Amino acid sequence: MPLVPAMMSLSALVAARDNGHATPELMVKLARDAIARRDGEIHAFTHVAEFPTIVADAPLSGIAIGVKDVFDTFDQPTAYGSEAWRGHRPEVDAAIVALARRRGATMIGKTVTTEYAFFEPGPTVNPHNPAHTPGGSSSGSAAAVAAGMIPAAIGTQTGGSIIRPAAFCGIAGYKPSYRLLPAFGMKHFAPTLDTVGLYAASIADVALFAELLTGRDLAASPVEASQATIGIYFCAELDTADAPMRDALERAAEAAVAAGFKVVAVAELDPLVTARAAHTTIQDFECGLVCGPDLARFEGLLSARLTATILSGQDISPADYDRARRAAKRGRKATANIFDTVDVLLTPSAPGAAPLGLASTGDPRFNKLWTLMGTPAVNIPGFSDADGMPLGIQAVARFGQDKALLSIASALQTAVAATI
Amino acid sequence: MPLVPAMMSLSALVAARDNGHATPELMVKLARDAIARRDGEIHAFTHVAEFPTIVADAPLSGIAIGVKDVFDTFDQPTAYGSEAWRGHRPEVDAAIVALARRRGATMIGKTVTTEYAFFEPGPTVNPHNPAHTPGGSSSGSAAAVAAGMIPAAIGTQTGGSIIRPAAFCGIAGYKPSYRLLPAFGMKHFAPTLDTVGLYAASIADVALFAELLTGRDLAASPVEASQATIGIYFCAELDTADAPMRDALERAAEAAVAAGFKVVAVAELDPLVTARAAHTTIQDFECGLVCGPDLARFEGLLSARLTATILSGQDISPADYDRARRAAKRGRKATANIFDTVDVLLTPSAPGAAPLGLASTGDPRFNKLWTLMGTPAVNIPGFSDADGMPLGIQAVARFGQDKALLSIASALQTAVAATI
Repeated sequence: MPLVPAMMSLSALVAARDNGHATPELMVKLARDAIARRDGEIHAFTHVAEFPTIVADAPLSGIAIGVKDVFDTFDQPTAYGSEAWRGHRPEVDAAIVALARRRGATMIGKTVTTEYAFFEPGPTVNPHNPAHTPGGSSSGSAAAVAAGMIPAAIGTQTGGSIIRPAAFCGIAGYKPSYRLLPAFGMKHFAPTLDTVGLYAASIADVALFAELLTGRDLAASPVEASQATIGIYFCAELDTADAPMRDALERAAEAAVAAGFKVVAVAELDPLVTARAAHTTIQDFECGLVCGPDLARFEGLLSARLTATILSGQDISPADYDRARRAAKRGRKATANIFDTVDVLLTPSAPGAAPLGLASTGDPRFNKLWTLMGTPAVNIPGFSDADGMPLGIQAVARFGQDKALLSIASALQTAVAATI
Repeated sequence: MPLVPAMMSLSALVAARDNGHATPELMVKLARDAIARRDGEIHAFTHVAEFPTIVADAPLSGIAIGVKDVFDTFDQPTAYGSEAWRGHRPEVDAAIVALARRRGATMIGKTVTTEYAFFEPGPTVNPHNPAHTPGGSSSGSAAAVAAGMIPAAIGTQTGGSIIRPAAFCGIAGYKPSYRLLPAFGMKHFAPTLDTVGLYAASIADVALFAELLTGRDLAASPVEASQATIGIYFCAELDTADAPMRDALERAAEAAVAAGFKVVAVAELDPLVTARAAHTTIQDFECGLVCGPDLARFEGLLSARLTATILSGQDISPADYDRARRAAKRGRKATANIFDTVDVLLTPSAPGAAPLGLASTGDPRFNKLWTLMGTPAVNIPGFSDADGMPLGIQAVARFGQDKALLSIASALQTAVAATI
């Protein structure tokens, strides 16, 4: 049952384009045809552009990207996964969308998000088994890449919404350092956490996408493994990961050793336990402020869970919020201390593989700390459980060390693949 | 020529309401009548609500506020001071607007902003002399309070757009610590700088407004002057202030001494000179990202100056932006060091009084450093030049020390008034 055909490699497409072996028009046509063939099963898109603009001679020329439907697009409907906004047509693009257009990308369509990028799921299924969730909230962006429909997609993470769907769908998902990509023009949920991230087939692909999109030096470079230290992170949540996931983490550590990295165990520091617990207070307080205007206007059109979260957020006192923010600040200091001794931490991307059913998009317990810390993180694909469902290992680095993270994680992806 | 009648004191209105001497309906009617009488001359409002909602039994019941027209309002047109957005009707309120409504405030109208809260001026005149600018970009919010039309207003500051109009109009303008008030749902210009701020007649009034709006303990409290140290800030720009402004700073220092504060001179540290210079790079780079979508859609409808700033921002390299951000970070550390030895810094709010004419809204050179530092700042009114035009002294405190700042600045306002 090969529901998952070969994925489109952004690096391969760019190389073919630059060598004159493929025109931007052909590259976009490949994506359109793949969407036409597969999205009837996957339901990754909320809208596909009928006459997408194709730009010549730009860094992302010919790259068809899917954009999570929490980002405003002036030429495609934008509904934030919500009945309340069905048919909404923003006047202008979100900043990241306009940036992608300026760099030559083709906005091939909008992808399914949970309601307001929170928990209420959309119709997207997991390309590896349609009975399973693709994860959330960037469900459609991850599934569209995993199903080989597009080479790259844009999503967001407030808890675990980039890394978790990447892990469940077996692709590379990259959550950059906070603010490396502009979030303005997205439907905010908790603005100090809301982080724009990227998807592609492999880590090398997603790193190249980040470089071509931003003009920053982010492409994965060769790594001198003996000069880098990998920490296996024994966080407080690790016992709650299931056995296949703990095995995957062990395999990742073995692959790192085999590749010549120095590998050490890293214990969790108390300030990070406290910071993780502070995430919900910060998220809900900000949600109460930011989504409060929507509840005031659209009561009855928001889900019960979103409504309850907005209301409970409005009940959190400023003093409790400030306390949580101070805990986050102490956590960032402790995080910086950890990265004085290791270059990259490895930790599960999720408690296990994608849960059965579409009612839940899974659990962000392994992600929300790193969202709050603002550190770059990337899902290393290439692991799977006994049923062949993908498992992902999350690599995390110091704030601002995005290129080092992507380079080391790419080397690890190669090393893991070599052990199979 | 008494163009400036008595201002409305928010504290007095709240006391009258709580003592049963004024109903919320009467309080709102006073504002409506004042607007009807005066705004034909002042041009502070872009829109006045015909049937404003009045809420009983809430902290801000009966307080009619003006909201700078960079904030979305679902029930009043929102044009961001731009031809491009004329007649725009947002679906939902900005977060600060929804918060103010939940606290019982009456949205009496939208106030004039420069285009996108940048430099292209609107029609508002200075209530103290209509031949002079009221300052910008929060022109209408400051002028409406100064002209006695409303007791409180909301504005924003990216360079000097809260403090400068407050100084030019002779009122209290309070720029809180970064993110104390939510900015989401405003027309962003440079999101890491865009700061929501408040206006009222006196510092005690604006502090009470902040407390009633947020539920935070921010009202000005009595100060033990002998326990507080005031630093007179000899920043690099001080020589560029005009003579009346330098005199005002001297008078503020004398008043502080007379009130029993310890007063010291504080020299500017090099990292702060560098940080001030970094402001423009950060602002313009972010403007290129955030306003880029507007330029792509509305070319020809944006002013030449705004267009040029967006384009030049898009030409700034990520490396230059990152360098500027690092300079800001070093500046914040140096700022924290300064506040180890003083509680409050005093520095001009502007180079002088409001310039003649409406073509320029004045110069933010004394403000943009503190916007970038994220420190709370407040304009102390009560000074004037030989022509009777207001001058303002800016008080600045450590990040998060908003209540101490407002309390000390309120004591200084009283002390300055006592010296006249």
